[in-house]
Amino acid sequence: MKQNRTALALILGCTLLVQTFAGGAQEAEKKVDETKARAKYVFLFIGDGMAVSQVASTEVFSRAQASKDPGWNKLGFSQFPAQGLTTTYDASSIITDSASAGTAMASGKKTMSGVINYDPSKTSTYKPITEYLKEAGYKVGVVSNVSLDHATPASFYAKVKSRGDMYDICMQLAESNVDYFGGGGLARDKGKKGDQPSAIEAAQRNGFTFVNDNASFMALKPGSGKVLAVNAVLQDSFAMPYEIDRADNDLSLADYTAKGIELLDNPEGFFLMVESGKIDWACHANDAAASIGDTIAFDEAIAKAVEFANAHPDDTLIVVTGDHETGGMSIGFAGTKYSTAFDLLSKQKGSYVRFNREILEPYKKAHTPDNARFEDMLPKAEEYFGLSFAELSDAEKEMVQRSFSRSMKNEVERAAQEDVYLLYGGYEPFTVTLCHLTNQRAGIGWTTYSHTGVPVATYALGQGQELFDGYYDNTEIFHKLAAVLGISVEAAVAAK
Amino acid sequence: MKQNRTALALILGCTLLVQTFAGGAQEAEKKVDETKARAKYVFLFIGDGMAVSQVASTEVFSRAQASKDPGWNKLGFSQFPAQGLTTTYDASSIITDSASAGTAMASGKKTMSGVINYDPSKTSTYKPITEYLKEAGYKVGVVSNVSLDHATPASFYAKVKSRGDMYDICMQLAESNVDYFGGGGLARDKGKKGDQPSAIEAAQRNGFTFVNDNASFMALKPGSGKVLAVNAVLQDSFAMPYEIDRADNDLSLADYTAKGIELLDNPEGFFLMVESGKIDWACHANDAAASIGDTIAFDEAIAKAVEFANAHPDDTLIVVTGDHETGGMSIGFAGTKYSTAFDLLSKQKGSYVRFNREILEPYKKAHTPDNARFEDMLPKAEEYFGLSFAELSDAEKEMVQRSFSRSMKNEVERAAQEDVYLLYGGYEPFTVTLCHLTNQRAGIGWTTYSHTGVPVATYALGQGQELFDGYYDNTEIFHKLAAVLGISVEAAVAAK
Repeated sequence: MKQNRTALALILGCTLLVQTFAGGAQEAEKKVDETKARAKYVFLFIGDGMAVSQVASTEVFSRAQASKDPGWNKLGFSQFPAQGLTTTYDASSIITDSASAGTAMASGKKTMSGVINYDPSKTSTYKPITEYLKEAGYKVGVVSNVSLDHATPASFYAKVKSRGDMYDICMQLAESNVDYFGGGGLARDKGKKGDQPSAIEAAQRNGFTFVNDNASFMALKPGSGKVLAVNAVLQDSFAMPYEIDRADNDLSLADYTAKGIELLDNPEGFFLMVESGKIDWACHANDAAASIGDTIAFDEAIAKAVEFANAHPDDTLIVVTGDHETGGMSIGFAGTKYSTAFDLLSKQKGSYVRFNREILEPYKKAHTPDNARFEDMLPKAEEYFGLSFAELSDAEKEMVQRSFSRSMKNEVERAAQEDVYLLYGGYEPFTVTLCHLTNQRAGIGWTTYSHTGVPVATYALGQGQELFDGYYDNTEIFHKLAAVLGISVEAAVAAK
Repeated sequence: MKQNRTALALILGCTLLVQTFAGGAQEAEKKVDETKARAKYVFLFIGDGMAVSQVASTEVFSRAQASKDPGWNKLGFSQFPAQGLTTTYDASSIITDSASAGTAMASGKKTMSGVINYDPSKTSTYKPITEYLKEAGYKVGVVSNVSLDHATPASFYAKVKSRGDMYDICMQLAESNVDYFGGGGLARDKGKKGDQPSAIEAAQRNGFTFVNDNASFMALKPGSGKVLAVNAVLQDSFAMPYEIDRADNDLSLADYTAKGIELLDNPEGFFLMVESGKIDWACHANDAAASIGDTIAFDEAIAKAVEFANAHPDDTLIVVTGDHETGGMSIGFAGTKYSTAFDLLSKQKGSYVRFNREILEPYKKAHTPDNARFEDMLPKAEEYFGLSFAELSDAEKEMVQRSFSRSMKNEVERAAQEDVYLLYGGYEPFTVTLCHLTNQRAGIGWTTYSHTGVPVATYALGQGQELFDGYYDNTEIFHKLAAVLGISVEAAVAAK
């Protein structure tokens, strides 16, 4: 490409021009000095897999529920006064995983995919912001609706060379001085084989009050010491249910956030990280309805922090971001061209997980590939996804029928067959095909079953919010938070 | 979906909270009052089809040219100190077209897809910012590298009920008091059938100096009156060549921008709109290399404005935005999962258009479907796209061979066959398949051949830049520009 020659020269040249004019790279630090904004109550909300498309699709969906005219119903957090774009690449790849992304935000440094708070060579550790804060007298909380030993929450209290070392993570949780853990369970409480000493019991010995029923959770009061609260209902991989599947009497991410505020509130200040982890899982499976449901629930959790900020406007900062985009989600699909019909998504009864659990898997258990009948399953699938088979094109009908046959045959040796992987991504062929068709008819397209390298949006409200305007790297989230919290991070800054 | 019930209540509730805390919707106007920032030299750069993914893919590409380590080489404009996200829906659809998007930015109001500066009922007209500015004594320039009667440039000087009324647009161009038109040609200079009086000749009668060779263009000097400068080389649909196809001695978008600055500069001020129109066209065709090339060239054009801003820092504002996203582009493809290889894109020799013109079409003219041999074409395709057929999977090989056969048979009745449309989008099957494979191996996926509803990013540098932080609608671009230019837009504001 001819322009390759000029690209770098231009970038360097234009960078200089911009720096001359506006201060360039020093801008963020200058702003810190100028504003001297300080907050002692700081919230970091991380939507796993949540980038511009995940937020926008939720806003378009909300609008479609309210009006037939095109428009945009913004979420609460997307109306925050400060907003930026954030790059998420890690030391291995333009496309990060949640371990290196969590590390970048928690500790301000890049590492390899899969690594938590170790450097890329896996020889020295990073110090997460929560450690600095505990030393400075803050209380600290870590909430996630996926398992608490998952990569994102673990980045805020653990250091492991591989996110797969989950029992190690569990034991670090048990030994941590985090004041409040809430949400999902511990996937490796007793190790991979279930034959190790329980990390939850170790946590209790280390002073944590452990609760895992609603009544005990609601009864928790400030002053009861360190808390480990695991949701009574866990759906998949020790995670809380998708919002779209949640029963009315189940606790929500907002409940865990509100309780965190109640327990952590103290005159010295607190830091609360809240992850919505299943936006990512829904997007891996290309299930837009589940992603949208969890994004709305995430906004409801953030609204609890906004309530607190309204009561403490001079001392509070709320930052909302994503750790990466998942799925290559877009509001536009080749087959629907310039039209969208997001109202169709409201017909979907639950997540792809619940469809598998409650409809497909029982049928598979009761049938063989030879006696399975597509006609048996079709009405249930149509009902669950709000799809009309009769309205599908011939090509789509064939796609659904073939995927049913593949699901019945357990054709899951997909990695070896690339074209089959492209169709189903390792998920149940029948279910992911139904998700695709539901999404496509609404006007949503996907490019992958993995994460992507597209930047995410970051939103801020409160003291120091202006630091979060602009276009910056995910490692800067740490430095901006540190600046607002007024904690000393010389070592971290020097190593930048 | 259960959360539908709560979504609206939440949105309303949280909106109130945010407004209480931060001033909410009044924030932008308050900022205007506070800063009283004024600029008399204002640039609006519109990347047609350019959103976060188009910018990010260019930055990842630039980095991949410079280093094997993952990272991010920012463009000049993406380092501008103020940045926001912008919604682009129009009165017809969540997915806008360029006519309604151009109207929103030029006149501050929504209209139907395809309509330029008329209201949605097509009964009354809107007044574009250029009219206000001419009344206030500013000079005005309109530059585009696609034809000057195309929707985006037309939104800044014409009013038509349909963007298809291009001869009408041409005649309005001829009758306009715009001081400088530069870039592409007039696609309908003599009407659709070529039997109408020339609009270019009409423009000359109305006082425009018309040039369409490089020497005359370079010789243009301030004081020569109104100018209509059409590029000597037009590639497709009266547009300047893709940057990736541009010969070294052809003029660039940066040349047309620099000349605009030279001709328009005067003590009363000027407004210059510059469109890069073929980022959109490349993305419609899912040709990432062409999109990236034109985004780099766009940055080079913007650098000319940055040079001017450095010389006039107290009086200049530069705004860069997109009118919509095109293609559902993502940095991540199912088949490549977490890896990218953007350096592969540099092996592509030119745009999809040039491949069609110089390689595929001559072969098709010389052969019939019966005597066409895939083996003849393969080495040329491999050379042009930098692809190795031997390294493709069996499924991919079959895809390429089938697409060649379809191109040779002119199987272009695609709209009727939806599955074929999904594969090729109405483009040459062979060429778009080669683009897809090139992009996918780099790690780029697409969801559509049309526009999408994903918000775009907006960047600003200079006086009043802070107005362009945040998350706002494309109609606000007009109001923010009007505020900074200090022009009276009561009627427009009242009708908001």
